Amino acid sequence: MRVAELSRRSGVSVASIKYYLREGLLPPGELTSPNQAHYDEEHLRRLRLVRALLDVGGLTVAGARDVLATVDDEQVDLHVALGTAQDAVMASVQPVEDDASVRAEKVVADLVARRGWRVSENNAGRRAAVDVLATLDRLGGDQVVGLLDVYAEAMEAVGDREVAAVVDRDEREGSVERVVVGIVLGGALIAALRGMAQESASARRVGPSGER
Amino acid sequence: MRVAELSRRSGVSVASIKYYLREGLLPPGELTSPNQAHYDEEHLRRLRLVRALLDVGGLTVAGARDVLATVDDEQVDLHVALGTAQDAVMASVQPVEDDASVRAEKVVADLVARRGWRVSENNAGRRAAVDVLATLDRLGGDQVVGLLDVYAEAMEAVGDREVAAVVDRDEREGSVERVVVGIVLGGALIAALRGMAQESASARRVGPSGER
Repeated sequence: MRVAELSRRSGVSVASIKYYLREGLLPPGELTSPNQAHYDEEHLRRLRLVRALLDVGGLTVAGARDVLATVDDEQVDLHVALGTAQDAVMASVQPVEDDASVRAEKVVADLVARRGWRVSENNAGRRAAVDVLATLDRLGGDQVVGLLDVYAEAMEAVGDREVAAVVDRDEREGSVERVVVGIVLGGALIAALRGMAQESASARRVGPSGER
Repeated sequence: MRVAELSRRSGVSVASIKYYLREGLLPPGELTSPNQAHYDEEHLRRLRLVRALLDVGGLTVAGARDVLATVDDEQVDLHVALGTAQDAVMASVQPVEDDASVRAEKVVADLVARRGWRVSENNAGRRAAVDVLATLDRLGGDQVVGLLDVYAEAMEAVGDREVAAVVDRDEREGSVERVVVGIVLGGALIAALRGMAQESASARRVGPSGER
């Protein structure tokens, strides 16, 4: 199909398709003449994946490019794929070395010890947790600190079941894309369910007048 | 202080500060001459909040503008503030009406009924959950569907404790910013802890060789 049909079938504008081609998110079509390219079903599928990562997963273009390179790499190890997907979904901040970051590192190290987690120093989530807590400290806030163990306990259950679902399946074929998409869209789903649960808890605690 | 000092003390480039001024994220300084403005401690604090929302919370500029307008509105109701913060942290997607979205709406409605949640049809999280599930359906994946109740149970505990923390505090003064920042940074912290818990579960299940 030509780019116009690819646009019609995917619902993605031609301008966006050309942008994704330039950014290397979408592989080039087959040239049928010097200024006309032909796209196939694989392009359509890839375009849907690109939009899922960007729009629903909230990844940056650079993050999506890294994730897609991992999906395309047939030699990639599942742990590396997991790490790449985690890097892409975490907000990456230029680390600042100050009192707040030192305190935040201590809070996170204590949490890891308290829960008996096996987490390396360079885990993307660990770095992101330090950034969040240091940022909050710099803003003079503490509202998330009291919920740290509530969050950790919830994510312990989630992480365990997520990893179990991947390990139990034990398939190599197609599993990298499966895992990566699960990490990215799972994160968006968790955020969505949190919003639903907050409204529900608010309605229950404050009563019917509390409904929005 | 002048913009150069504001930049030095905040670690934010002058170009970024000027961008935030143009976009209305940062209120203008006091003009001390036609082309020189004076900024105070309140600007420094606001700049830190802007960066927290954008870099750590992962909000878009438009999302941050909405959130900051809510924080600045002294008349705003806490429920409206909660809704604005939720809207900003959810990926917003142009809804598509197709078989996948109809199926996803049914899955979410069943989940809400099964868990006895009180969630309105226009809750930002509910719309986002439908988007995620419909997107996954269109990609031919189901990896997140089997974890839906695991995620929901985890977020039920989180949402309940988050709302309890706000209600128990029962303060009006400063509480809108407190709640909004808690929603945004809490979401980033949950994502970070998920990444840590995944690595820990992976190391435990696969053994030391599974560590990255």
